[in-house]
Amino acid sequence: MLKPGQTIGILGGGQLARMLALAAAPFGLRCHIFAPEADSPAFDVAYAHTIADYADEPALARFAEAVDVITYEFENVPAHTAAFLAARRPVRPDPQALAITQDRLSEKQFLTSLGLPLAPFWEINSLTDLEAALAVSGRPAVLKTRRFGYDGKGQVMIREGDDAAAALAQLGTAPAVLEGFVPFTREVSVVVARALDGRVAAYDLCENNHKNHILSQTLVPAQVDGKATELALQYAQTLASSLGYVGVMAVEMFVVGESGDEQILVNEIAPRVHNSGHWTIEGAETSQFAQHIRAVAGWPLGSASRLGRVRMDNLVGEEAEDWLVLLSDPQAHLHLYGKAEARKGRKMGHVTFVTPE
Amino acid sequence: MLKPGQTIGILGGGQLARMLALAAAPFGLRCHIFAPEADSPAFDVAYAHTIADYADEPALARFAEAVDVITYEFENVPAHTAAFLAARRPVRPDPQALAITQDRLSEKQFLTSLGLPLAPFWEINSLTDLEAALAVSGRPAVLKTRRFGYDGKGQVMIREGDDAAAALAQLGTAPAVLEGFVPFTREVSVVVARALDGRVAAYDLCENNHKNHILSQTLVPAQVDGKATELALQYAQTLASSLGYVGVMAVEMFVVGESGDEQILVNEIAPRVHNSGHWTIEGAETSQFAQHIRAVAGWPLGSASRLGRVRMDNLVGEEAEDWLVLLSDPQAHLHLYGKAEARKGRKMGHVTFVTPE
Repeated sequence: MLKPGQTIGILGGGQLARMLALAAAPFGLRCHIFAPEADSPAFDVAYAHTIADYADEPALARFAEAVDVITYEFENVPAHTAAFLAARRPVRPDPQALAITQDRLSEKQFLTSLGLPLAPFWEINSLTDLEAALAVSGRPAVLKTRRFGYDGKGQVMIREGDDAAAALAQLGTAPAVLEGFVPFTREVSVVVARALDGRVAAYDLCENNHKNHILSQTLVPAQVDGKATELALQYAQTLASSLGYVGVMAVEMFVVGESGDEQILVNEIAPRVHNSGHWTIEGAETSQFAQHIRAVAGWPLGSASRLGRVRMDNLVGEEAEDWLVLLSDPQAHLHLYGKAEARKGRKMGHVTFVTPE
Repeated sequence: MLKPGQTIGILGGGQLARMLALAAAPFGLRCHIFAPEADSPAFDVAYAHTIADYADEPALARFAEAVDVITYEFENVPAHTAAFLAARRPVRPDPQALAITQDRLSEKQFLTSLGLPLAPFWEINSLTDLEAALAVSGRPAVLKTRRFGYDGKGQVMIREGDDAAAALAQLGTAPAVLEGFVPFTREVSVVVARALDGRVAAYDLCENNHKNHILSQTLVPAQVDGKATELALQYAQTLASSLGYVGVMAVEMFVVGESGDEQILVNEIAPRVHNSGHWTIEGAETSQFAQHIRAVAGWPLGSASRLGRVRMDNLVGEEAEDWLVLLSDPQAHLHLYGKAEARKGRKMGHVTFVTPE
């Protein structure tokens, strides 16, 4: 168990690490950020930082020496990096959660092993595999790389008439998974925390809208049947417990079927704090960032109760130029991430609105 | 008007500067802390810091060069330091507010000039002055140094039978003020913000309980008559406007008289964010720290609306050792200031409880 005054090491220096560091400070904890990019937004609010590649073992060793526990803001931490660090300091969540969730195939196999509902999937290592799978899945179906996909990158939809070989070529030679198409009505997520002592606390079900495959808006609570909502929360809690997870994670899910008969399909796990949980900063008793810090510090979780109806709008690219308008709205809670350049598709900030229920 | 990405310079590196820096970050603003103490808690969460004496002109010049606007966390910024910086960058609040509030006599004269009610007072430069004043004030009365008093330091109560000369000697040779004794029933404060455009927003009236002259607990709203409450808020707003103030300030006041006939006496002005406003972090739409940052950035103020009934307990000295108990209370919002050593009487943190009304 950490004590105030001790230091949390965070791999990755983006907005998630930045908000983690801001949440750690009121507990009297220090953060040391490890990231390769010299202009990482998290550096601005952290006690210390290391600029080095994730493969730089001497830098990793010094980092481990300087901190008391290690966590990360992104799921693509190289396995070797995680193992190297875990030999020196507690890494939370455990590198096993990374290993399972970094690979879409192992993740889906894990979900299946727990009996959780998900879209049908096929392992694809060749055009033969793909053609055989498509014969069963029908079209449309979605071909995805097993690793390193995010925000719609590394996936291609195969529709009626599309050339399977061309789709496979588009992903390069990477091992892939074919997913049966899910005619979902909504995309939802559950942000859930698990403490070192095994206690689990889930935030309310989030409804997520995307633009160009990037999260655009989160509404809480999601407008989903009570029974389906219950199941979604239960699936997330089952996953956190089954992984022996310590920290905050998000489980993205699809809702299919009509109201009154809605079903939940699990899509994927993000083993970290998540964009669909940013609303918790003002909208919940304990933010997902404070919750993650509590968990990785080995402390009891805070309350995940919601404080009202919540809307979170992402500010992507030039949308952040509206900052002065948002500052002038007394209902708007503005968050900017301190990024210098508002590139197209880059998450620059978000804004949260909480309305009493 | 500042833009996100710009830098606020803060004089002083204690918990107030630390919480200001934490509040600036979500606006995409950077903070540069200037403080003489190498272990200043604010350094841990700031973009940059300078360790130097407030009289070190080359260091002040470099600091001014590195920032876009300058503010401070304590009222005893030397006049020369404030003037030196104000010649180079906007200093908000204006050094004039410092000049008036650093000297109890000029502060009381200013309050009097505005027609605000306060305890009777006398300028004391000699034993002759003191004996003449005591003859009018009666006893008990309180002798205070004009400058550098805080948390009960620099003041002595003169009771029936006490030796006036001994009391004066106790304060050294410092110029002083004698205050008539106020038989107050409650100590209250108003935390108020004024923007560059002149708009003013006051938080609800706070009721403050002290232990050993150090703030122990703040309750909001204060249990004070509606009419007296109205007057208190009005006095604070008048003060902010009359000073041409930009930023957050606190006005400490006494309540005298019985319920139904309560009167307000203004005690003193703190030209900075204030311990009795810490409850605003969770208890108000906009925290006093975010509000101060908005004001000094030249931005519109946020809403000062309260979100429930609030209790804030200071954690002084060894009281902070209860951190794990407080972390385990789902209603408690814990704040630790990252101070290494829990000296007696040192403010180590605070904890806030918000209850729906």
